[in-house]
Amino acid sequence: MGGFYIGKEKRARKAYGFDEVALVPGNKTLDPGDIDIKWKIGDINFDIPIIASAMDGVVDTNFAVRMGKLGGLAVLNLEGVHTRYENPTKMIEEIINSSNKEAIKIIQNIYKEPIKEELIEKRIKQMKKEKVITAVSCTPQRATHFGPIAQEAGVDIFIVQATVATAEYMSSKKKGLNIKKFCKGLSVPIIAGNCVTYQSAYDLMETGIDALLVGVGPGAACTTREVLGIGVPQVTATVDASAARDDYFKKSGRYVSVITDGGMRLGGDICKAFASGADAVMIGSAFARAEEAPGKGYHWGMATSDKNLPRGARVRVGTTGTLKDILYGPAKLDDGSQNLVWAIKTCMGYCGVANIKEMHEVEMVIAPAIKSEGKFFQHTQNLF
Amino acid sequence: MGGFYIGKEKRARKAYGFDEVALVPGNKTLDPGDIDIKWKIGDINFDIPIIASAMDGVVDTNFAVRMGKLGGLAVLNLEGVHTRYENPTKMIEEIINSSNKEAIKIIQNIYKEPIKEELIEKRIKQMKKEKVITAVSCTPQRATHFGPIAQEAGVDIFIVQATVATAEYMSSKKKGLNIKKFCKGLSVPIIAGNCVTYQSAYDLMETGIDALLVGVGPGAACTTREVLGIGVPQVTATVDASAARDDYFKKSGRYVSVITDGGMRLGGDICKAFASGADAVMIGSAFARAEEAPGKGYHWGMATSDKNLPRGARVRVGTTGTLKDILYGPAKLDDGSQNLVWAIKTCMGYCGVANIKEMHEVEMVIAPAIKSEGKFFQHTQNLF
Amino acid sequence: MGGFYIGKEKRARKAYGFDEVALVPGNKTLDPGDIDIKWKIGDINFDIPIIASAMDGVVDTNFAVRMGKLGGLAVLNLEGVHTRYENPTKMIEEIINSSNKEAIKIIQNIYKEPIKEELIEKRIKQMKKEKVITAVSCTPQRATHFGPIAQEAGVDIFIVQATVATAEYMSSKKKGLNIKKFCKGLSVPIIAGNCVTYQSAYDLMETGIDALLVGVGPGAACTTREVLGIGVPQVTATVDASAARDDYFKKSGRYVSVITDGGMRLGGDICKAFASGADAVMIGSAFARAEEAPGKGYHWGMATSDKNLPRGARVRVGTTGTLKDILYGPAKLDDGSQNLVWAIKTCMGYCGVANIKEMHEVEMVIAPAIKSEGKFFQHTQNLF
Amino acid sequence: MGGFYIGKEKRARKAYGFDEVALVPGNKTLDPGDIDIKWKIGDINFDIPIIASAMDGVVDTNFAVRMGKLGGLAVLNLEGVHTRYENPTKMIEEIINSSNKEAIKIIQNIYKEPIKEELIEKRIKQMKKEKVITAVSCTPQRATHFGPIAQEAGVDIFIVQATVATAEYMSSKKKGLNIKKFCKGLSVPIIAGNCVTYQSAYDLMETGIDALLVGVGPGAACTTREVLGIGVPQVTATVDASAARDDYFKKSGRYVSVITDGGMRLGGDICKAFASGADAVMIGSAFARAEEAPGKGYHWGMATSDKNLPRGARVRVGTTGTLKDILYGPAKLDDGSQNLVWAIKTCMGYCGVANIKEMHEVEMVIAPAIKSEGKFFQHTQNLF
Repeated sequence: MGGFYIGKEKRARKAYGFDEVALVPGNKTLDPGDIDIKWKIGDINFDIPIIASAMDGVVDTNFAVRMGKLGGLAVLNLEGVHTRYENPTKMIEEIINSSNKEAIKIIQNIYKEPIKEELIEKRIKQMKKEKVITAVSCTPQRATHFGPIAQEAGVDIFIVQATVATAEYMSSKKKGLNIKKFCKGLSVPIIAGNCVTYQSAYDLMETGIDALLVGVGPGAACTTREVLGIGVPQVTATVDASAARDDYFKKSGRYVSVITDGGMRLGGDICKAFASGADAVMIGSAFARAEEAPGKGYHWGMATSDKNLPRGARVRVGTTGTLKDILYGPAKLDDGSQNLVWAIKTCMGYCGVANIKEMHEVEMVIAPAIKSEGKFFQHTQNLF
Repeated sequence: MGGFYIGKEKRARKAYGFDEVALVPGNKTLDPGDIDIKWKIGDINFDIPIIASAMDGVVDTNFAVRMGKLGGLAVLNLEGVHTRYENPTKMIEEIINSSNKEAIKIIQNIYKEPIKEELIEKRIKQMKKEKVITAVSCTPQRATHFGPIAQEAGVDIFIVQATVATAEYMSSKKKGLNIKKFCKGLSVPIIAGNCVTYQSAYDLMETGIDALLVGVGPGAACTTREVLGIGVPQVTATVDASAARDDYFKKSGRYVSVITDGGMRLGGDICKAFASGADAVMIGSAFARAEEAPGKGYHWGMATSDKNLPRGARVRVGTTGTLKDILYGPAKLDDGSQNLVWAIKTCMGYCGVANIKEMHEVEMVIAPAIKSEGKFFQHTQNLF
Repeated sequence: MGGFYIGKEKRARKAYGFDEVALVPGNKTLDPGDIDIKWKIGDINFDIPIIASAMDGVVDTNFAVRMGKLGGLAVLNLEGVHTRYENPTKMIEEIINSSNKEAIKIIQNIYKEPIKEELIEKRIKQMKKEKVITAVSCTPQRATHFGPIAQEAGVDIFIVQATVATAEYMSSKKKGLNIKKFCKGLSVPIIAGNCVTYQSAYDLMETGIDALLVGVGPGAACTTREVLGIGVPQVTATVDASAARDDYFKKSGRYVSVITDGGMRLGGDICKAFASGADAVMIGSAFARAEEAPGKGYHWGMATSDKNLPRGARVRVGTTGTLKDILYGPAKLDDGSQNLVWAIKTCMGYCGVANIKEMHEVEMVIAPAIKSEGKFFQHTQNLF
Repeated sequence: MGGFYIGKEKRARKAYGFDEVALVPGNKTLDPGDIDIKWKIGDINFDIPIIASAMDGVVDTNFAVRMGKLGGLAVLNLEGVHTRYENPTKMIEEIINSSNKEAIKIIQNIYKEPIKEELIEKRIKQMKKEKVITAVSCTPQRATHFGPIAQEAGVDIFIVQATVATAEYMSSKKKGLNIKKFCKGLSVPIIAGNCVTYQSAYDLMETGIDALLVGVGPGAACTTREVLGIGVPQVTATVDASAARDDYFKKSGRYVSVITDGGMRLGGDICKAFASGADAVMIGSAFARAEEAPGKGYHWGMATSDKNLPRGARVRVGTTGTLKDILYGPAKLDDGSQNLVWAIKTCMGYCGVANIKEMHEVEMVIAPAIKSEGKFFQHTQNLF
């Protein structure tokens, strides 16, 4: 695939993000009402291909129940405030009310409290009681420990999530998670990630996982790219991981869903993720704007609390409507942040495709993000 | 045409917008006074190749009459306030006076009022009485119903306009508009759109339309690209649609004019549309600045009122002069927003071309939008 | 040279501006004190390859004399306030003191006053009396009339300048300037322009001119690109015109100097013009900052006064030092706007080249304009 | 390597900076605790590959001692305030307290004071007394004079630094530094720079230096690119210089370390420098934020004091923590400006590489700097 010289005898590929591409409408169009956006993880079916991220300002048990009842999935973070504190509301309020200057330090302190196994059990049962599909996540270091506890408590899907996850992890001191063994040890479907390359996606699929999270560095509450320099823009990362999925499917007959995670703010970004090959998307900041979100219009990343190297800001996004408004509208904002489901279906109708699989084949063009031309006038209007 | 890899085995073309190109002057120059910018739709001739968009803040019957008398064409929206309300002024004032936060909701409410057939007839007759060419537009869903009413009332041109229009539309529930049949059913010229690709342009031309609207996503009051991810920048879209026009003409002997619609703020943008192959341009925000515009310096898109998924902001552009100032000057502003006709002729003179057809062949270069170098000094001037 | 597809079967070259390139230092370095930056027009020699633009806020007779004594050249506009008014100071003050909203209209009005032949004579004699090389400019329409008057009054160099100048101009009503005949008719050297392409540069050189002005659309006080869409960024325009110069020299043995005109704010931009092939540069806004400039920190373009289609803003740049500071320093600012001569020599020393001709061969890289990294900290500093 | 046409028959390579690339995670990952980031200059070993720049707002003797004790190296400028004034604190305060308008002039004045040889000796001994590795720098013009004085006083490493350094310097008036002879004349290791091209890097290595500084124009307090137009973005410059190092090593068996100097604000930038081939990095502005920095949150470049052509601003960066916080954390900020050492190790772990040499081979992608998506919400939040 070549790439470009970035210096003597060193080449680099150009990678693309959502802001750099646009979708091309089809040569026929379809009624959005006819479009099918269902998908599944293992044998579990979902009406809509949208997952809420395991961020403490976004998902608590109430939010997860509401999301499940609306046809989606929300992931509860097993290493967040909800499993560290019997009553996390007070902690979240402390985070929300802190000054910009102190937010990181306060978050670091709050996350020093140990995780309670009984709270893991309790939170999962709170969600299961409402008869929705439940999903929880933790880091690879704790997966072997928390996995069985969560399964015992009745969880439906278990997620192992690190900034960068690979099938092979090497350490002189501690043993890394053997994902293959972990998958065999649990009976519920496993989602793992995040990754951004063809090879690491393929390797992870071979460990037996049921779905893969794609995305390193792109999220609104994530500063991994600034802090570590690491990151592959999401369009290219999704295209590459999807190629691995298709190749692995051809070889193994097993379809491991690709979930694009991070960097999507608006309906248009989500549509581009599907056109890049995603089977579903995982979203944080857009859901932080829901009335049901515990962060009350604020959110922060999973690495914001890192005690040595926090990578993520506390971001204020405001509260703009209910979760139902955000998913199903009617939209009261014109910026693409509400009625995401209808936006996806409308887009697919204009692109002339009937389901997510067909959406993978939609043509994209490389096109710079449009500068709001309205701004031109707003800028000059005070002259008149 | 190749394109670039955006990931493993997936390619995308680069598409270009107005801000990314510039025109190259010719090796001879012409007197602007000698330049011919006439064009026609079917057998109807126009002095200037500029059309005002069917936006409620831009075109009412008064505006359309004034535009017609000045040699251009303005389109009245049959699904806007002017056909929903006997006295739309009050509604427009409500929209203008609403806060940023409430504008969308107020617009959505105002557009819930049903459309009155008698107002369609009345508005058209108000315009015809002044002996100007009249044009009205509606969406494909209502075209079969409104087309005959409008023709009966004496309209000269009928426009069928959707965010994305294709010759073929598929729905399990409702029957899509059969454009071919619709064209045969009416005796007035039909303009249809919008589209952005060679194939969909070609397919639409084959249905029998007389002119084609090109542009998805670029306008100042449009957020389709943010909300749906769809959009092809206008230079590339116009070049492609023009190639379809030329190929279709070679095959059929019928010349279907290409009208670039949206994304042009200034004279320079309009000139680039012609160099991309346009026969005429359709403009919204530039005319919203006219004293005659009903929006009094505000405008909003046709999809801003969508009850499920509004895609378009209410934009304040200010009022800067009369419609005559904007079209024929003399310009009192130096920013390219006034005296558009002389700007087109001056540009064509510098490019050494005598008419719009020759303008289609003018050389373009890819060149980044110039940052106002004046800003450098404005930024630093307070140091001195 | 190919270029890129911007749509079906239409290609465009990428053109580059100053902000998009940077100079590569040499593999040897030279003492700046040893570097020769002399150049000539016809048989007239200049110490420094810098010309002040014929803008009314920049050049009056006093400024021109001062510039001449410092080794450079300043051009007096024969169609500006200085030849329309016996006492232009009052008019300039009116322009300076007008509001942003009214500036264009006031400028248009002031320039309606007819040009006086006796003032042409008077201004040239005022300059000649001080024994400096004098240059004046006018548009092609007035060249045949003003040329002999200026020569009679003792001018040393005559400049014919239009937004776009070509050897051939066609009009049904008025006869265009025959530059070839005009050159033969005057005995003083002729500079003509502006142009931006190889062919038009070559054609103009064949008419017998002594130097060529290169640049359409790039200046700080110019809005040609916004208003007309026309413009070729200066690096590419200069490279192309210089190629024409070299080819014409090979064929004719006559060396027609290339003067890059417009778009250079700072020493670095000027250095890039020379590396692109320029023999000299023409500068406006940088000299508007001189204490000697009549505009007292304001300037405006030659097309700002156009009565139909003004193309140029009145820009406030502030006054930062004397003309001597700007040309020869010592610089009191660190932004590259002062001590331009030493900046050129220092640059050439680092590039390892001893004169302007060698500078034409210096390597450039394509490199985005550096964002001031200081801004990062300035942006965040208020957190601490 | 080709490059792109920037005009007729003139080509230029595209050069890349830190903001234009990102690192691709590996297909395996490592425990950051296992990663080795040691390096050496000549026979002197360092725990961490980070050097503090010879800037007066950053390094005084106290800072250098602290940096040495923390495993790094800080360079004292022999031509700064610390060797011109017995008590430089007062001068630094004057610089800090000056207005933006006057800063350059005040700096120029303060640096007019002659350098005292006895202060050179004194400063070096102050540092040596604390038993840390000491390094000092001066320009080529003064190297022959100051080198022996510094060596006599016990310095461990001597640095010769100019904006652009080449093995060959030509002057009609003064003799340039013969670096080869200079290296032979001193027994301590020599670092020289700055350079940005393969050939000049190779030539300098052949003179016998022990390490090379790479970087012209990129620093936060540097305006060389604006003033002179010169500069090669750091990723390409480092890749090219590293290629020279590897080729020179193959030929000579001598490994001359490449130190990327300038333009790195954050951990991510530093990681990218290593992936480009750097053995170590030299940093200014990031250390100016340390409590121990004499500039108390301000810094300025080495060329800011140039009496003819100052090239560098006085930049306010604020004070954010101790030097230990910046190097070893724990980070209290999430922006990548603290705990640089752990950021490097974490990045290398994610990239699956165990030491700096392996880091040279890590894959990069071309990817635009991510716009903070948080800003989107911050921008719109006041609507809610």
